[in-house]
Amino acid sequence: MREAAGDVRSPVVTVYQYLSFLTDYGLEDGFVAACHGTAARIAPEARIIDITHLVPPGDVRRGAAVLAQTVAYLPPSVHVAVVDPGVGTARRAIAVAAGDSILVGPDNGLLSWAVAALGGAKTAIQLTNGEFWLHPVSATFQGRDIFMPVAAHLAAGADLAEAGDEISVADLIALPAPTSRLHEGSAEGEVMSVDRFGNVQLSIPAADAGRLGIGIGTPLVVLCGRRQLTVPYLDTFAAGAPGEIVAFTDSAGLISLAINSGDAAQQLGLPPGAHVRLTPAKVG
Amino acid sequence: MREAAGDVRSPVVTVYQYLSFLTDYGLEDGFVAACHGTAARIAPEARIIDITHLVPPGDVRRGAAVLAQTVAYLPPSVHVAVVDPGVGTARRAIAVAAGDSILVGPDNGLLSWAVAALGGAKTAIQLTNGEFWLHPVSATFQGRDIFMPVAAHLAAGADLAEAGDEISVADLIALPAPTSRLHEGSAEGEVMSVDRFGNVQLSIPAADAGRLGIGIGTPLVVLCGRRQLTVPYLDTFAAGAPGEIVAFTDSAGLISLAINSGDAAQQLGLPPGAHVRLTPAKVG
Amino acid sequence: MREAAGDVRSPVVTVYQYLSFLTDYGLEDGFVAACHGTAARIAPEARIIDITHLVPPGDVRRGAAVLAQTVAYLPPSVHVAVVDPGVGTARRAIAVAAGDSILVGPDNGLLSWAVAALGGAKTAIQLTNGEFWLHPVSATFQGRDIFMPVAAHLAAGADLAEAGDEISVADLIALPAPTSRLHEGSAEGEVMSVDRFGNVQLSIPAADAGRLGIGIGTPLVVLCGRRQLTVPYLDTFAAGAPGEIVAFTDSAGLISLAINSGDAAQQLGLPPGAHVRLTPAKVG
Repeated sequence: MREAAGDVRSPVVTVYQYLSFLTDYGLEDGFVAACHGTAARIAPEARIIDITHLVPPGDVRRGAAVLAQTVAYLPPSVHVAVVDPGVGTARRAIAVAAGDSILVGPDNGLLSWAVAALGGAKTAIQLTNGEFWLHPVSATFQGRDIFMPVAAHLAAGADLAEAGDEISVADLIALPAPTSRLHEGSAEGEVMSVDRFGNVQLSIPAADAGRLGIGIGTPLVVLCGRRQLTVPYLDTFAAGAPGEIVAFTDSAGLISLAINSGDAAQQLGLPPGAHVRLTPAKVG
Repeated sequence: MREAAGDVRSPVVTVYQYLSFLTDYGLEDGFVAACHGTAARIAPEARIIDITHLVPPGDVRRGAAVLAQTVAYLPPSVHVAVVDPGVGTARRAIAVAAGDSILVGPDNGLLSWAVAALGGAKTAIQLTNGEFWLHPVSATFQGRDIFMPVAAHLAAGADLAEAGDEISVADLIALPAPTSRLHEGSAEGEVMSVDRFGNVQLSIPAADAGRLGIGIGTPLVVLCGRRQLTVPYLDTFAAGAPGEIVAFTDSAGLISLAINSGDAAQQLGLPPGAHVRLTPAKVG
Repeated sequence: MREAAGDVRSPVVTVYQYLSFLTDYGLEDGFVAACHGTAARIAPEARIIDITHLVPPGDVRRGAAVLAQTVAYLPPSVHVAVVDPGVGTARRAIAVAAGDSILVGPDNGLLSWAVAALGGAKTAIQLTNGEFWLHPVSATFQGRDIFMPVAAHLAAGADLAEAGDEISVADLIALPAPTSRLHEGSAEGEVMSVDRFGNVQLSIPAADAGRLGIGIGTPLVVLCGRRQLTVPYLDTFAAGAPGEIVAFTDSAGLISLAINSGDAAQQLGLPPGAHVRLTPAKVG
């Protein structure tokens, strides 16, 4: 690894103080700690912000959503994300420069929404330089053996270009964006996620709904499956009466459904991916 | 924000190396990380000690108990706590100086037991200075947008007084203290908490019980609901025979009930809040 | 505590930048944070890598396995491990030097596999020097009051010998190693652990199995209880067809059973400790 100082080719070397880390490894084993330790041995001064390690096993879409909604609030970092049901197969390992950060992970779409949230990919590298890896490389734990060591080398000052071969950003695997469209006076979308409080986040941006006249203070008709209900659109779920289903703009700028002191996802039977349609209520 | 150095008005500025963080946000989403990231961008040198993020959603009393039992073991810190079922409503956002620390959170009683544990409130500020916030401020994620950025500014050297308007410490919302009294030869109290091991922590301080002659080595009569059982009062649950219910003084100085290698809460059917009465066993 | 600088007897003092921490404390209470805080007050510059705090309550064997499989990937550290069903009884509290690290915990076998993984015990100390403890010492929370403060003092530069009295490394409690033997053309072992993905890790090293001609690409007969099944031995579980049970060498070098996109432990009904026998499949 090239040192940050003493490089005549590129005298300004970005050194990242922060790594972020998102996986589906869970918290019951030593997997996450083995990755932290690997980073500490390579970049002892770097700090790690754990985003979550409780992505449901293999749920690339959920991992992509959490990553994309979080990166904007993190300092410039090397973001490491590993939800990788294809580990050890032919899928590529990549590092992508976007915004002030670098994202490192499998090329299975996991990084794609976060890359978009950071302004799009500037460069992409396929991780082929084994000098940055931890050897022997296991076939099933590339978070420890490839992704985290590469990220730590980058945080410690290595050039992104040294991590492997440049590839076309147009060839990166991208997850299809969540459905969200305006159609015949309705805002259509899907359930993006359900949080710990049972709040149901829709893929419908508050700004888009606003174009239909759906705004805070307006009652709203929610159609999901065969159910239809009219709910108030309030500033916050806490403004609803206890037990009342309300719509509000959540902290990601998306319309969400919630029940004050209750679990809206359970009561509405709305899992991630479920189709939802919103229309302004007719004022009779 | 005023810099720590170069301030002629108050040349000695407390800079906190540590933040602590307690919420009911859970560990499955990116909420905690978004707050960590927000702190890192404002106070990159501060370290965060996560107390827990698994307070049951909206359980202010449980959050208050965990916070109060932990702060004494933390270094001087800015303690950020967010269990906030009234987020976005009229409840105040506050910062309170107590002991060597500052506590930041909603004024709903969450901080009150910790403030008392640290020796009582010295000053209290309502957080009204938007210059310390992250904009736009969402109505539902004030941990990220208000509490953590304010705390990070304080950790980085800002004066508490700059965070907003001073308010009377007498007006702060305080949770009623857990029931605990000596009455007709009994120590009466309630279940404070049940830990991962099924140990049942009572609100009865060992010192208070001692005044009734209840001390280590004494058999003890426990009355809960219609049940009555006599248990030994030992140094530690591990001194009990496997399967035996015992009383002991826990690490917070409170009397607790446990079963060596078993789950006392489950076996006794004692949830948090349940009323319990202890009397010294009559030695016949 | 002796300072790192200014000691004329041993001018070279090892100071550990890192602590690691493994317990069965869970994440719902403030127990882990109280230990972090205690360390921060003694060794404010040390960093803590949390291995896991979700060891099943009192499961010393599981704690030992996770610790042993993780320490090799951590930087030189003071490793603190507390799974201690005998807390407050006569079992000893110890610190053991092994490799470049020191391990601190109860003398109940918890540390023994990690000590072996680090090359064996060089010195062992019974923790008897109360000057390194947090007083008053509770009978039930020695992680906070003894193990972590001792570890923090060691990280901050105290000599291991000062933590107490040297004891014979031969007298340390060691857990029996997991069963693993070659017998009549079979590799016999047990289920070491089941991870979050339902992957079943066996105590059979890939290298040992190799001596029987069991190698990647060979079909393998798995006998567990009355069940017998023939599975492919592949590079990685991801190389199996969806729903297919496969064997592979896991990231710890042990043979594991998995189902691509499925839960092998559940489908095979194999809990930790279950006996398993592997033989090369006869090629008819």
